[in-house]
Amino acid sequence: MRNLKIVLAYDGSDFAGWQVQPDSATIQGTLASAIGRVTGEKVLPQGSGRTDAGVHALGQVATCALESPIPAGNLLRALNDLLPASIRVLEVSEAELEFHARKSARGKTYRYRICRGAICPPFLARYVWHHPYPLDENAMRQASALVLGEHDFTSFAAVDPERGKEENGVSNVRRISLSGWDREAEELIYTVRGSGFLHHMVRNLVGTFVLVGKRTLRPEDISRILQAKDRSAAGATAPAHGLYLVNVEY
Amino acid sequence: MRNLKIVLAYDGSDFAGWQVQPDSATIQGTLASAIGRVTGEKVLPQGSGRTDAGVHALGQVATCALESPIPAGNLLRALNDLLPASIRVLEVSEAELEFHARKSARGKTYRYRICRGAICPPFLARYVWHHPYPLDENAMRQASALVLGEHDFTSFAAVDPERGKEENGVSNVRRISLSGWDREAEELIYTVRGSGFLHHMVRNLVGTFVLVGKRTLRPEDISRILQAKDRSAAGATAPAHGLYLVNVEY
Repeated sequence: MRNLKIVLAYDGSDFAGWQVQPDSATIQGTLASAIGRVTGEKVLPQGSGRTDAGVHALGQVATCALESPIPAGNLLRALNDLLPASIRVLEVSEAELEFHARKSARGKTYRYRICRGAICPPFLARYVWHHPYPLDENAMRQASALVLGEHDFTSFAAVDPERGKEENGVSNVRRISLSGWDREAEELIYTVRGSGFLHHMVRNLVGTFVLVGKRTLRPEDISRILQAKDRSAAGATAPAHGLYLVNVEY
Repeated sequence: MRNLKIVLAYDGSDFAGWQVQPDSATIQGTLASAIGRVTGEKVLPQGSGRTDAGVHALGQVATCALESPIPAGNLLRALNDLLPASIRVLEVSEAELEFHARKSARGKTYRYRICRGAICPPFLARYVWHHPYPLDENAMRQASALVLGEHDFTSFAAVDPERGKEENGVSNVRRISLSGWDREAEELIYTVRGSGFLHHMVRNLVGTFVLVGKRTLRPEDISRILQAKDRSAAGATAPAHGLYLVNVEY
């Protein structure tokens, strides 16, 4: 038995998220079926975490146990021949048997793209949140720095107790080592790196920072919201299609 | 009565081309219906030319006669509110009554994008032709220069006599003032500017230049193919989704 590490990029627009579902196209299900066609083995690759419907990935990681002796490079090419163009396998490599895409993860980086132009180019519509209204970008930068370090992120987690327990253990404390907004031409881009993320956490952070940008909240309200440990203290969940899982660290 | 000039960008992936059709979503039909909803007038905007299913535009131009006194800027905003995100109105302006998007056009520029990387990023799959196999790009550059100037492009025109006559008059002679391949990172991009283009002409040029790249043809074969005035002398039609109408000159 081998344990393979698979790195994937995908356009999440046309999928009902990562996790396999009986009646919807998902990334995990589509990948499992392609691996099955190549190897004849019935497998369910395990991802570093779920991504929701519409969320994209530049470097999602999955692990998969296989009996087949097919060389990693051949498997990569065979999968890219079979998979839809919206899912690409970037790397396949042999991993230690103990290596697990989710349990071994030490950190993740996410990015969120907001298009600030009055008119969003049609080629970006699936890939950014179009928000052309005034935003105080400096205030958003100040706010984003206030989540750095170790905090209980309950206020930014989806109220979703089953999933919370299963994926995140009992604690909602996470360590954030990078959190900031950058400008690239007409795009305002949030990048966040952390030890782990609760369900909807990045989108809820972005939705709350946008309230700071609109001056509905002040930057320093972020600390108060963290302390509240109450989802209703934070802003709305930003749309899925602006979010990218950039990479997973091990 | 006013005559409005409308500049549009669109992602052609989900449309059956420009021209209105009874049972398919088209750019012209979608635009006509949005203008109808804003003004209450039943109109059919006339484009500078048809684009085929899957072909994109960065600056398609349409003209439309309207009774409504709605200011151009308000019409632009209202249309962008109603249209799907895959069609954006970039400009609306008042034009002379004699101005006609197709008949007044003096030239057009098209671009064709080929992704040369071994793996095509999933976010580009709808927007480029993925061709990772070896290509002699220098030979393609030499070949592309041979269509500059005035030529009969019958060999590069779809065998489509009705449409040929209607859109292009009796002659298949066109003047090409720019024709070249550029490299931008992993993309190989063809740009062509001419007095006008026959149906499928850019895609047939690209398909033929790719045969030169594969060394199935030599660059100098392009002159022979032009002289043949026979569609079967040239290469296959390159896929629609790599093609962009960049702009229209008046």
